[in-house]
Amino acid sequence: MKKTALFNQIKKKKSFLCVGLDTVVSRVPEHLRSEPNPVFAFNRQIIDATIDFAVAYKLNTAFYEAEGVQGWEALRKTIEYIPKSVFTIADAKRGDISHTSKMYAETFFDLMNFDSITVSPYMGSDSVRPFLDFEGKWAIILAATSNDGGKDFQDLDVGGQELYKKVIQTSMNWGSDENIMYVVGATRSGALKEIRKIIPNYFLLIPGVGAQGGDLKAVCENGLNKECGLLVNSSRDIIYADASENFAKKAALQAEKMQRQMAELLYWI
Amino acid sequence: MKKTALFNQIKKKKSFLCVGLDTVVSRVPEHLRSEPNPVFAFNRQIIDATIDFAVAYKLNTAFYEAEGVQGWEALRKTIEYIPKSVFTIADAKRGDISHTSKMYAETFFDLMNFDSITVSPYMGSDSVRPFLDFEGKWAIILAATSNDGGKDFQDLDVGGQELYKKVIQTSMNWGSDENIMYVVGATRSGALKEIRKIIPNYFLLIPGVGAQGGDLKAVCENGLNKECGLLVNSSRDIIYADASENFAKKAALQAEKMQRQMAELLYWI
Repeated sequence: MKKTALFNQIKKKKSFLCVGLDTVVSRVPEHLRSEPNPVFAFNRQIIDATIDFAVAYKLNTAFYEAEGVQGWEALRKTIEYIPKSVFTIADAKRGDISHTSKMYAETFFDLMNFDSITVSPYMGSDSVRPFLDFEGKWAIILAATSNDGGKDFQDLDVGGQELYKKVIQTSMNWGSDENIMYVVGATRSGALKEIRKIIPNYFLLIPGVGAQGGDLKAVCENGLNKECGLLVNSSRDIIYADASENFAKKAALQAEKMQRQMAELLYWI
Repeated sequence: MKKTALFNQIKKKKSFLCVGLDTVVSRVPEHLRSEPNPVFAFNRQIIDATIDFAVAYKLNTAFYEAEGVQGWEALRKTIEYIPKSVFTIADAKRGDISHTSKMYAETFFDLMNFDSITVSPYMGSDSVRPFLDFEGKWAIILAATSNDGGKDFQDLDVGGQELYKKVIQTSMNWGSDENIMYVVGATRSGALKEIRKIIPNYFLLIPGVGAQGGDLKAVCENGLNKECGLLVNSSRDIIYADASENFAKKAALQAEKMQRQMAELLYWI
């Protein structure tokens, strides 16, 4: 997906909501457990219920790999089911030597047709570049993550600035704002402000709003740009809003609530 | 697997060879392509042919994910097939927020019974610690990798030393030499020497010998310790030594050749 197409979705829906489909069988409502693939059955209803309010869906591979072959099947079916008008993210945090990163890229971009994949920068340029060779596909590089341990190395001083800034300054030149985004945790509002100075035009994927403690307003104050430039992810707050047969309806209400907050923050669009 | 059990295998076989099962369907010999699962059929023969010379097998998940559900099935069958006497490595380079890393740990340690998994340190302590909560299981943390881009961030100066050293000094305290190893590329002999000063007793996983240009003798001069302390990986040189029906026999010869070199270097054991 091109950046303009993503921005068009954002304008149309007045939303920059990304729904995280972190689905585990044990939290799928009882009545869906007898389905051939309960995780896919759940995801399909969540997608139908939230598609009017979301511009992106993020699937964390950990949740699918946990179910083995059945989980991998659920991942494949879910990505096939998501309409091509929205942006899709394989939250896989991959990264390996060049030849191997290329295989991951082919798997997630060609075999499964995700629009993007999250990647870890630790192994450097040739571990990330293979993800940038696919037309219309994106690498979303970890910069400043939302977890406590994120600061252990990301905030270390390298030549007068934090490592996460160095990661951005180095890696932004491997591609452009048309095929690279960065992960910045919602809990890292200080970092977010600094990062916007370095890359005013890049999209940022922001996890950690809601369950992990991040605040949407603060994120927007520090992160919004003229093309919005943000995808804010919410997973558990939406998909597990309710555990009954009404789960999809409640998920829709929760997604709509977030979309309305976002619409207010996007008043100028 | 306990460290003493691993060392016992090394003494018994006079080898610290890890065979990398980086198997792709397109390189499986013709006569195996009609098998129900060609990758598993290939791996099984490679394992049978090399088990006398190898103390570990490493499966890089990229190669299995590339084949979708069938590949995930091959991964599962292969790990089930490998005798429990040898050490097994899921070369997955995972790492995520705590809750999600725990899911990866359960997948690779409980569901598939790997002895170890490679992890990226970029997200810090709570992304790695969940892998250390499993009795007899190991996290193998990326330190100084063999690829060119490895130096982009790993060699940055943080407070008077390279980032890879800081990663080791910080993370070694999250566990011990009984549940943590580090990845150090065979091409990084300078780093290897420095790393041994910091962690004399930890095992190191060394990829990059052979096809990637690393030299076994140099690795041993800089890396061997009193319990050997090295697992040297070779993938393509062994498993693709021959593309005919004789592939397993040629793989065995290649593995034996490496084992003999290793036996010489382990003369003191």
